[in-house]
Amino acid sequence: MSYVAVEVHPHPNIHVGVVGVGWMGRFHATTVAEKVPGLVLEAIADPDEAATTALARRLGVRKVTADAATVFSDPAVDAVIIASPPRFHPVQMKQASAAGQAIFCEKPAGLNLPDLDAGLAEVARAETPLQIGFNRRYSAGFSRAHQLVCQNAVGTPHLLRSLTRDPAPLVPETIKRNAIFIETLIHDFDMLNWFNSGSVAIDVRTVADALIRPDYASTGFLDTALVTIRYDNGALATAEASLQTSYGYDVRLEVFGPDGMVTAGGAPQPDTRWYGAHGSTAGAAQRNIEIFHDAYVAELTDFRDLVRAWRAGRDLAEFTAGRTAMAGGNDVREALAIAQAAIDSHESGTAVAVEHAATEEAPR
Amino acid sequence: MSYVAVEVHPHPNIHVGVVGVGWMGRFHATTVAEKVPGLVLEAIADPDEAATTALARRLGVRKVTADAATVFSDPAVDAVIIASPPRFHPVQMKQASAAGQAIFCEKPAGLNLPDLDAGLAEVARAETPLQIGFNRRYSAGFSRAHQLVCQNAVGTPHLLRSLTRDPAPLVPETIKRNAIFIETLIHDFDMLNWFNSGSVAIDVRTVADALIRPDYASTGFLDTALVTIRYDNGALATAEASLQTSYGYDVRLEVFGPDGMVTAGGAPQPDTRWYGAHGSTAGAAQRNIEIFHDAYVAELTDFRDLVRAWRAGRDLAEFTAGRTAMAGGNDVREALAIAQAAIDSHESGTAVAVEHAATEEAPR
Amino acid sequence: MSYVAVEVHPHPNIHVGVVGVGWMGRFHATTVAEKVPGLVLEAIADPDEAATTALARRLGVRKVTADAATVFSDPAVDAVIIASPPRFHPVQMKQASAAGQAIFCEKPAGLNLPDLDAGLAEVARAETPLQIGFNRRYSAGFSRAHQLVCQNAVGTPHLLRSLTRDPAPLVPETIKRNAIFIETLIHDFDMLNWFNSGSVAIDVRTVADALIRPDYASTGFLDTALVTIRYDNGALATAEASLQTSYGYDVRLEVFGPDGMVTAGGAPQPDTRWYGAHGSTAGAAQRNIEIFHDAYVAELTDFRDLVRAWRAGRDLAEFTAGRTAMAGGNDVREALAIAQAAIDSHESGTAVAVEHAATEEAPR
Amino acid sequence: MSYVAVEVHPHPNIHVGVVGVGWMGRFHATTVAEKVPGLVLEAIADPDEAATTALARRLGVRKVTADAATVFSDPAVDAVIIASPPRFHPVQMKQASAAGQAIFCEKPAGLNLPDLDAGLAEVARAETPLQIGFNRRYSAGFSRAHQLVCQNAVGTPHLLRSLTRDPAPLVPETIKRNAIFIETLIHDFDMLNWFNSGSVAIDVRTVADALIRPDYASTGFLDTALVTIRYDNGALATAEASLQTSYGYDVRLEVFGPDGMVTAGGAPQPDTRWYGAHGSTAGAAQRNIEIFHDAYVAELTDFRDLVRAWRAGRDLAEFTAGRTAMAGGNDVREALAIAQAAIDSHESGTAVAVEHAATEEAPR
Repeated sequence: MSYVAVEVHPHPNIHVGVVGVGWMGRFHATTVAEKVPGLVLEAIADPDEAATTALARRLGVRKVTADAATVFSDPAVDAVIIASPPRFHPVQMKQASAAGQAIFCEKPAGLNLPDLDAGLAEVARAETPLQIGFNRRYSAGFSRAHQLVCQNAVGTPHLLRSLTRDPAPLVPETIKRNAIFIETLIHDFDMLNWFNSGSVAIDVRTVADALIRPDYASTGFLDTALVTIRYDNGALATAEASLQTSYGYDVRLEVFGPDGMVTAGGAPQPDTRWYGAHGSTAGAAQRNIEIFHDAYVAELTDFRDLVRAWRAGRDLAEFTAGRTAMAGGNDVREALAIAQAAIDSHESGTAVAVEHAATEEAPR
Repeated sequence: MSYVAVEVHPHPNIHVGVVGVGWMGRFHATTVAEKVPGLVLEAIADPDEAATTALARRLGVRKVTADAATVFSDPAVDAVIIASPPRFHPVQMKQASAAGQAIFCEKPAGLNLPDLDAGLAEVARAETPLQIGFNRRYSAGFSRAHQLVCQNAVGTPHLLRSLTRDPAPLVPETIKRNAIFIETLIHDFDMLNWFNSGSVAIDVRTVADALIRPDYASTGFLDTALVTIRYDNGALATAEASLQTSYGYDVRLEVFGPDGMVTAGGAPQPDTRWYGAHGSTAGAAQRNIEIFHDAYVAELTDFRDLVRAWRAGRDLAEFTAGRTAMAGGNDVREALAIAQAAIDSHESGTAVAVEHAATEEAPR
Repeated sequence: MSYVAVEVHPHPNIHVGVVGVGWMGRFHATTVAEKVPGLVLEAIADPDEAATTALARRLGVRKVTADAATVFSDPAVDAVIIASPPRFHPVQMKQASAAGQAIFCEKPAGLNLPDLDAGLAEVARAETPLQIGFNRRYSAGFSRAHQLVCQNAVGTPHLLRSLTRDPAPLVPETIKRNAIFIETLIHDFDMLNWFNSGSVAIDVRTVADALIRPDYASTGFLDTALVTIRYDNGALATAEASLQTSYGYDVRLEVFGPDGMVTAGGAPQPDTRWYGAHGSTAGAAQRNIEIFHDAYVAELTDFRDLVRAWRAGRDLAEFTAGRTAMAGGNDVREALAIAQAAIDSHESGTAVAVEHAATEEAPR
Repeated sequence: MSYVAVEVHPHPNIHVGVVGVGWMGRFHATTVAEKVPGLVLEAIADPDEAATTALARRLGVRKVTADAATVFSDPAVDAVIIASPPRFHPVQMKQASAAGQAIFCEKPAGLNLPDLDAGLAEVARAETPLQIGFNRRYSAGFSRAHQLVCQNAVGTPHLLRSLTRDPAPLVPETIKRNAIFIETLIHDFDMLNWFNSGSVAIDVRTVADALIRPDYASTGFLDTALVTIRYDNGALATAEASLQTSYGYDVRLEVFGPDGMVTAGGAPQPDTRWYGAHGSTAGAAQRNIEIFHDAYVAELTDFRDLVRAWRAGRDLAEFTAGRTAMAGGNDVREALAIAQAAIDSHESGTAVAVEHAATEEAPR
């Protein structure tokens, strides 16, 4: 007996360039190369040559460059993942969309509203697809919680809370003014917006301090922040962050309304427990990547499908309609507007109104 | 064979009068009569004669009165439990201490700082013992958490959160202006002070609304509130309340610092679980009394010991030194000062400084 | 204004004698004296005079004796709590019932079936009320689980498991041959019978060993045992015990059926948690008394009500009808029959049939 | 600027044939095709042509066949995954090893000891690598638990328990005599052996019944089983299975020893919770694949590394030395020996000794 030949019509592969290979870029590159069938890692760009070369060897990629522009002008690249420092996000979105490349851009997509708006306007003009890396939406736990809230498990939210506590040590290069709002809390602002969807943030009150590294307080650095947000449906929300925990990555959400409460995330509660004279212990310190591994794969799998739909000429508004987890330009714009108001509130000591976009025609 | 006679020297009983028999007063009266050996329920006072008579019959008490003054002037009463409406607390503390009675006073012990200060001053002058009913301190879970924090399990706190959500239905008589701050959140303010002990609240930012009963919003009623507090050791704290939950009493605390996090309380997680096609379910809606039953007994047991020590002529400052759960005049004064600042912040929309007592010589 | 005099008609107090003041007897005596209104501790008996005298002083009791017969012949004693070593239970039940005293007898109520049957027969003849100290039935968690199973939350049980692990150190005086079956596992046999009610154990298979104290293995001592029971409704059950744990008292139940699973008990999972570099820790080692404190109070409160009903001339069968937690003679007889079969199975290495009572007319 | 060319030396791909495309085979085929870089799905075989063709189209495979021998004689196939019905496992292992193909064989690798031993002997003779699909060892929770036990977190085990409850509906084709021992409980027997490693099962006592489908009882079918195992280090173990649950896949392990207890697995406790008037609910019914998804990927990733090591000429005994999760011929032989004893015990009603292999020279 011998084989029967099967005729197969696979989707054409999507060739991806990764721009920026800090830990996030390296992780996305690995996900593209090894975890998402249909995506091919075509090229990687970063000024750090040692890093790009090592990564390329590990993942079997032949094209590396110190200059992101090389990737944006490579006709073999169908789509880019922008994981460079935030100040480059707007201009790189512009370059990629001008080249007709689909874009997956890490948050915050810009350091301030004018820059972000400029970048988004270019992408909108080019009509290339854009997805923002709000990975928490793709975590199974948060996704299930969102589904429950959408199914009205709690009613209209009255009180929400989102928090982020990061175990990464606060080394000098991570000590950046206002990064707690723009790079960390932006996840929480997006979570609060997503779970209180259909409603818009009105104003913001911030208290914040340098408690972990008081030695940097004089530079304006902040490592601990508490932001209160009022929404136009009455909901009151808290976003909270600390840039260093001893017990691992702690990311949580709580939505409370007249009919109940939904919670997601939290400190480690794995299914393995050890009971001894000390009491019972669950798990050990956990890292971002342990918690969100599957979410990173899921968001790039969704991105693959978005690019496929786009190349197939489908209407993107229609395609994305049911995919509530897929964050676009409007979503990051709303989150950054809250971050900006939080910074202003911290500096002024008063409540600050959130400055919404003039129009909602940002790209997906 | 026959009995050997044992000579016994029991403590003389302490005869207690209970003033106010709303649900809290009824509960305290029952605890005195049935749960704390050494306390004897001597008399009860409340304008509602049907309520006092029914309670007296149930508990086997012979003396009831509509007039609290009768209790304060009864020489057979060694100690009183004041569980009347808050506006009466200061004057009743004054009457009791003038009569040389020991006082257990429910929070808030006064509706505003001037009234409270006047009451506390009289008690201090009379040198009678005073304990405030901050029952949460006596709950096994919160007590254990406090012990952990005192043992430096988290380091100096950076972020704290205390919340109260009450399942009692919002009936007209519970709809009182500012009660969310003065009667509900005062517990959370006390918790935050207790867990961040040695530090003092600096200022307060409030957002609050009538989300459960928007029909009462025009009267100034508030049922949902979020208060941010900055402490002089840098700690940032949130106190949060909702006056109605669907899933039972939810009282929680979280203390986060450089070395870890301690949590206490929370929605029901009893040891009985039911697994079925619906998933796994733990517990049912729980009431205050189910959670804090033992705490109410413990606080009155501590009060009994305080009164015994006082009658034995012991130095009260020395007696109370190690008993950190036993709240006194200073504690309620600090908590009410935060409540007052929270009200002012809500009304002004700005941060409001906490007005501390001129002196700390309030009575225990 | 003065007091209104209320006429009160309290229940007459029930005067209780406690026989045996090992830790269980001391605990019951304290519960009677301090925790159950309506019970009065009248007398205590134990050969250890130092122990009785110390306890009597602490609880304010005037009558102590080395001879239990003194208590059984004291007309001032309405009811007795038998907490002596198990070999005395049958004869003491006989003496008490002959004197017309109501009986609360600790398990096992006898060391073997003939002795137990003889004791129960006397109590039945005297028609005095009898309650057995199966305290686990009164624990809130197990009680709630039982309610769920009775409400058909799992359907007819297919698999059950009950276990006991005791943190008390294995000192020479606790090292008794077969005590693991007769004194420890008897609780688990009762639990399995109670949760699989309406059904009867058919046969038993035992494996057991001396793993904690292999140095005592040659004496026939056993400290670790696993007993499999088949019931006549098809259910398969496991009872498991270890006489020493490092992590505190661990008592658990699991009932699995076609419609779901109900679990109760378990190692410590209190509401206070500490998160640090070590992971998250809940609680510390717990003792029997921390877990079952409220259950011990509840069972004696139920006993008080039973005695009141009896003295009021009520029909006891009718009175106990709805009170499924209140264990009587039949219940302990069934549990001891399984214990006996488990011993026989261990000795023979084969399955052993459970020997049921000839008649079910044991006393409540 | 342009690209720098990186020279890459990837591992040569390993071409895999999958034999049997029931749900397990389909899942493994998908894992090979999409989840494990370095593995290439080369061919699939199953008598069900519709199934193979559909799967091949979905995964982009060109070679399908109804005859497994075609795969075993294909020189392009480096390694095979045997996921056919168990009765074919021994002969297919023989065919694959004769062809010099590396083998990943699903459990039980044979329906009885003589067949299994014959198959293993051939593989040993051919010196091809063999891995058995005991996926539970690769689950993160069980793996972490094993690590804890190996680090002596509980001391030498005294009591162990492993259970499997499967939510798959009991349809006629899954109703096979003794499958509960040979296909289901074999996982539990392997778990108990793995967690009590260094020790050997002595004898077995079984109670079992048809409680879910009593209508099949007359055919000898069993759906509920409880097996007690004694080990030569004294440990007493329970393996328990039910072939149908209402609440999802429930797989658990508990290891108890003098120094503590380690637990793994369990009914759903995900990080998302919903609190409402019903209490608090965690998760929904879960399927095997949700729990063990990552374990299936991990075991095939380990298999890839095993095949790579073999092709690189490395010593396999040395390679597998530290990889305790990688189950080989001896492991499945030991587990099947317990299954056989469990069947015999059920049939005889007595304890049955476990028949160990004459020699331990089974293949990895």
